[in-house]
Amino acid sequence: MSATAVASASHPASGPSIDDLLRLASADMKAVDAFIRARMESPVAVIPALADHLIAAGGKRLRPLLTVAAARLAREGRGAGETAHKLAASVEFIHTATLLHDDVVDSSRLRRGKVAAHLIWGAPSSVLVGDFLFARAFELMVETGSMRALKILAGASRVIAEGEVLQLTRAHDIRLAQETYLEIILAKTAELFAAAAESGGVAAGGSEPQIAALRSYGLNLGLAFQLADDALDYAGSSEALGKNIGDDFREGKATLPLLLAVARAGEAETAFWERALGGTEQAEGDFRRARELVASTGALRDTLDLAADYARAAKTALGAFTPGEWRAALGALADFAVGRAA
Amino acid sequence: MSATAVASASHPASGPSIDDLLRLASADMKAVDAFIRARMESPVAVIPALADHLIAAGGKRLRPLLTVAAARLAREGRGAGETAHKLAASVEFIHTATLLHDDVVDSSRLRRGKVAAHLIWGAPSSVLVGDFLFARAFELMVETGSMRALKILAGASRVIAEGEVLQLTRAHDIRLAQETYLEIILAKTAELFAAAAESGGVAAGGSEPQIAALRSYGLNLGLAFQLADDALDYAGSSEALGKNIGDDFREGKATLPLLLAVARAGEAETAFWERALGGTEQAEGDFRRARELVASTGALRDTLDLAADYARAAKTALGAFTPGEWRAALGALADFAVGRAA
Repeated sequence: MSATAVASASHPASGPSIDDLLRLASADMKAVDAFIRARMESPVAVIPALADHLIAAGGKRLRPLLTVAAARLAREGRGAGETAHKLAASVEFIHTATLLHDDVVDSSRLRRGKVAAHLIWGAPSSVLVGDFLFARAFELMVETGSMRALKILAGASRVIAEGEVLQLTRAHDIRLAQETYLEIILAKTAELFAAAAESGGVAAGGSEPQIAALRSYGLNLGLAFQLADDALDYAGSSEALGKNIGDDFREGKATLPLLLAVARAGEAETAFWERALGGTEQAEGDFRRARELVASTGALRDTLDLAADYARAAKTALGAFTPGEWRAALGALADFAVGRAA
Repeated sequence: MSATAVASASHPASGPSIDDLLRLASADMKAVDAFIRARMESPVAVIPALADHLIAAGGKRLRPLLTVAAARLAREGRGAGETAHKLAASVEFIHTATLLHDDVVDSSRLRRGKVAAHLIWGAPSSVLVGDFLFARAFELMVETGSMRALKILAGASRVIAEGEVLQLTRAHDIRLAQETYLEIILAKTAELFAAAAESGGVAAGGSEPQIAALRSYGLNLGLAFQLADDALDYAGSSEALGKNIGDDFREGKATLPLLLAVARAGEAETAFWERALGGTEQAEGDFRRARELVASTGALRDTLDLAADYARAAKTALGAFTPGEWRAALGALADFAVGRAA
């Protein structure tokens, strides 16, 4: 396959894309990046080095993008403003801090396509640099003078931590109720998407119905993204996911594709799941069999259907705004959340 | 020895004491405790369980005590007020979060006289509950509506993290410059003492010179406490310290008593320090020899003298306030910081 064919296969022209959104927000995101760069500095050299490892890897910067886009939407396209840029940088710092702590907690090996920071600098540095970024986020928020944004993002930070602890204590229960799984992803993922969009609305001085709509959009988008991510772990490529596929399975993490497949298993499959996820060594070929079962039981399809439902709900929330290029781009983002995994 | 003799030996009537301060602040500290109790709650049961393990152990609650006392001092004894109580609870949450993360980073076994939380609930839970408490601290601060207090405590949280990382990367250098050691304890300990006192002054609506004096008092007190703690690790009892004595030595942590003793070592002693702190197994009796050298080289005395200098500077800062029982009690606290180790 030629390089061109590879590129077009991974970005089909017809599929949903965030290209419009990235183009519209490029000047804003440059301003956000400048705050991120400036505020991850420290006289203690390991701090910017470690932070840069993760931040330079980039990821999609979805969460700060949400803050900026929400501010633009609430202002009908007029400039997002410095408050929105600072809040967007804060959101990215909070997110990066949780990634650093998560990777220590899960002993993950790969993050954003790069070796996880704790494997290079050690878990202690990852914990402490996470704390640094978290504190920096609050310093940046203080600069905006917006007590309401501080309230939103402090609350979100607390909810994320609760979600992570809940996941930690329940994550290996392969008979976890679907509601508990949703409660976990609501807290550990969707809450920050919601807070990112909501705080953008606050920065822009949006009306209360607009701010509520932005929160709803973010929350539903976050659920769609997490469900699609969890599906990708069984159906995607490591490249698309930015981390090793099969990690959730190898860690015995009870995500929805797994939970549904286990619930629908016959006797032989149940024995397989219990052995493979029972905490002892997994055998060669276990992940291949897990992928097959997740697909053949319809668990994968149902997970993606649920993701699509949330993506639709996100788009519905955008109805609170007059049509325009920002609204269209945010609608496309909701499609993209699910489309990349379809 | 009779029980009475034991009691009087550990609390000599003539020695410096924080009893007056604890008595004066008892109603305030009850209000602070109520906020701490209420805000460590979470539907995720492991969070309050783990937090309570550390918070019930209590320690001296010096930092929230500082916030309350600072507010009282700035108001000439009149009620500290709910803002001061909430900020005091926030300060304790920030401190508890850093303890949880520190114990993971240092693999400590004992904290406040109890088994360290990460040995019971695991390091991942300690990391995440630390994050929860940190976020809760900011939620409480938001409730006070004081942007200035948020700025002070967000800044302090960032400085603490920087100090911890600096300590992590330099802590095993037994030829560390004394200035770098002071830079570390300034950031990791004194900054929160300073912020605790300063935010109490802000809560009370103190004048700018008063707020600056409170910050200076807290900063110098924090340095005195940390220096005395570092001395106690070579000279005290595990009971007085609330953690195992000799831990710093066993971890090869470059505290001032060690640094001074190493700098003053002859050839034989240098060989001892290099072997004992070189990263290989320590021998039976190494800590006893280290204690002897720290004492015989005058390293212990000089560390305590420096602590006494900072305690004096703390008391000098109190000169910005009219004499009274609160000022006297805070003066006694500065004496106590050093006196318990003398």
